[in-house]
Amino acid sequence: MKVYNFSAGPSMLSEDVKIEAQRDFLNYSNSGMSVTEMSHRSKQFEEIHNAGISLLRELMNISNNYAVLFLQGGASQQFDAVPLNLLKTGRADYIVTGNFASKAAQEAKKYGDISIAASSKNKNYNYIPDLDTIVFRENIDYVHITQNNTIFGTRYTSLPKTSAPLVTDASSMILSEELDVAKFGLIYAGAQKNIGPAGLTVVIVRKDLISTPMSICPTMLKYSIQEENNSLYNTPPCFCIYMAMLAFKQLKKMGGIQEIYKLNVRKADLLYDFIDNSAFYTNNVNKKDRSLMNVPFTTPSAELDASFVKEAANYGLVSLKGHRSVGGMRASIYNAMPIDGVEKLISFMKQFEIQNKSCH
Amino acid sequence: MKVYNFSAGPSMLSEDVKIEAQRDFLNYSNSGMSVTEMSHRSKQFEEIHNAGISLLRELMNISNNYAVLFLQGGASQQFDAVPLNLLKTGRADYIVTGNFASKAAQEAKKYGDISIAASSKNKNYNYIPDLDTIVFRENIDYVHITQNNTIFGTRYTSLPKTSAPLVTDASSMILSEELDVAKFGLIYAGAQKNIGPAGLTVVIVRKDLISTPMSICPTMLKYSIQEENNSLYNTPPCFCIYMAMLAFKQLKKMGGIQEIYKLNVRKADLLYDFIDNSAFYTNNVNKKDRSLMNVPFTTPSAELDASFVKEAANYGLVSLKGHRSVGGMRASIYNAMPIDGVEKLISFMKQFEIQNKSCH
Repeated sequence: MKVYNFSAGPSMLSEDVKIEAQRDFLNYSNSGMSVTEMSHRSKQFEEIHNAGISLLRELMNISNNYAVLFLQGGASQQFDAVPLNLLKTGRADYIVTGNFASKAAQEAKKYGDISIAASSKNKNYNYIPDLDTIVFRENIDYVHITQNNTIFGTRYTSLPKTSAPLVTDASSMILSEELDVAKFGLIYAGAQKNIGPAGLTVVIVRKDLISTPMSICPTMLKYSIQEENNSLYNTPPCFCIYMAMLAFKQLKKMGGIQEIYKLNVRKADLLYDFIDNSAFYTNNVNKKDRSLMNVPFTTPSAELDASFVKEAANYGLVSLKGHRSVGGMRASIYNAMPIDGVEKLISFMKQFEIQNKSCH
Repeated sequence: MKVYNFSAGPSMLSEDVKIEAQRDFLNYSNSGMSVTEMSHRSKQFEEIHNAGISLLRELMNISNNYAVLFLQGGASQQFDAVPLNLLKTGRADYIVTGNFASKAAQEAKKYGDISIAASSKNKNYNYIPDLDTIVFRENIDYVHITQNNTIFGTRYTSLPKTSAPLVTDASSMILSEELDVAKFGLIYAGAQKNIGPAGLTVVIVRKDLISTPMSICPTMLKYSIQEENNSLYNTPPCFCIYMAMLAFKQLKKMGGIQEIYKLNVRKADLLYDFIDNSAFYTNNVNKKDRSLMNVPFTTPSAELDASFVKEAANYGLVSLKGHRSVGGMRASIYNAMPIDGVEKLISFMKQFEIQNKSCH
């Protein structure tokens, strides 16, 4: 049975990428070796690594005053790396729109004077605060946002107005829609949602911001060191970088971010429209702030939610359970989720509704 | 042509492990998913993760008062994590036996009063200092050693005498010979030499040592947090953990560390004996400190070294170039290097010697 994986991350990878990786698994490019075992200093791996970086630069239109880094540790490690590298005056403002945004702010408080400029906690993070009314402090080193909130299914559709460098956790939205990189000081993203296997973290950072990390910053977390060494200060997660490179190549072949964005909007519209027109399913996110990537929804009861998740899995629709802080279901429909997956989900939702409406 | 990969890391993986990973790459255990894309909270991945941990516990005979952690960032990140977690009085002693040992001490100096108890730098690290004459300071939090020195081809054949917890960077020797875990406070190792693909770091640490990390320690680097969360505080490098689990399973099937150690001794003996009996090749490491894993050697000239590396590659013996700080060649013969690989290397060395002896 064909399985559609709605996991929030690690998540579905493109069939073409997986097939190519499997085909070349024992013998990459006639080297007689697997990418899982070749030296990160070998000619073959250097080509993979540099192709990955230049494809990402091309896809996101990243200018040369930004470094593109391939790191480890996930977004959670960036929660520390960002303040350790970017705090100069020691002050930064955070907008808190979910668990990860809150953790990011919490970590940063170890290293400086961190203020929560706005939060949507009062409504269990089901909206993005009104950006026009936020007043940031003067003389801050950066403003931090979490651009798509995986757990709560929200996203920023515009950016906060600030003269300070804008730092974004783009883990669950990178490459899903166009970003004007020039508007950001730093963009970071765990790979395991829209890029490739878990174990790779992408950081795109304005080079002029990274020259003075704090003295207590671990060397591995210093962007300047990673930039000087083209992310090869020590052994990188080679196989993850290889699969990311394949995903970038495929996205380019499909027409780039502009094209995938259209598909993402189509997938999200299909699902939200169906939910909004149903009396059985609910998505309680502020409409204008709805995520294109993560769609949380509920049935009329927690018991039905549990049956839904279970029956859906038997039907080949897996990892639909919502995060415990919101309950219900969550369909993560990242770049690699084909439209058929969303259609099959909706058809299952219809069927489940018919079977369970009367008994409620 | 069959290729033997003598890279110091990432390095050769076992044929059986690679074949199984390729076979199941698109559909792991009938899940319809690749391990590269499945949720780290899924039942399938949890089984892989926990099997990996318990196989390692079994292979190394690790008691329950030690945590086994699967982390990211390589040994280089542990250079900071170790002092950030283990410094209490703020003092630790390091033995410096190579570049990585020196870097480890350097990083630790950011966080405490670090003393170099002994060093072999005076002879470009071609020996291990006499452990019987080393005097450690009183009231130190730990003693740090680098148990096998990848670049210089040395290894500890006994351990320093200290009542402080002993911390070892075992990256290039873990699983190659038996370790009495109870003698250590902490063992850490990057996976990309004797375990699996790059991107995974194994930490084995006595639980009573990790309860009071420094306040500036990033949460991701806190062993206590990782232990409480069974290394699933955030998304782990799932595919690397999967391949490590396969390697552990295979090592167990082969008879465990005792058996692989015998093979490793046989491989190393073959190569060292050949070098020692040759007037053409030289290994200048103190005999009793010679590594079982990394064998540096030279021909009579730098020019011949360069031809050796090039011609060997054409013959299917790749990544034999020595590190720039020692020059010449280095044959890394980790667990996954079969004895045929060493035999083929020796036969090439003989042939190269015959062809080049006269003209020197």
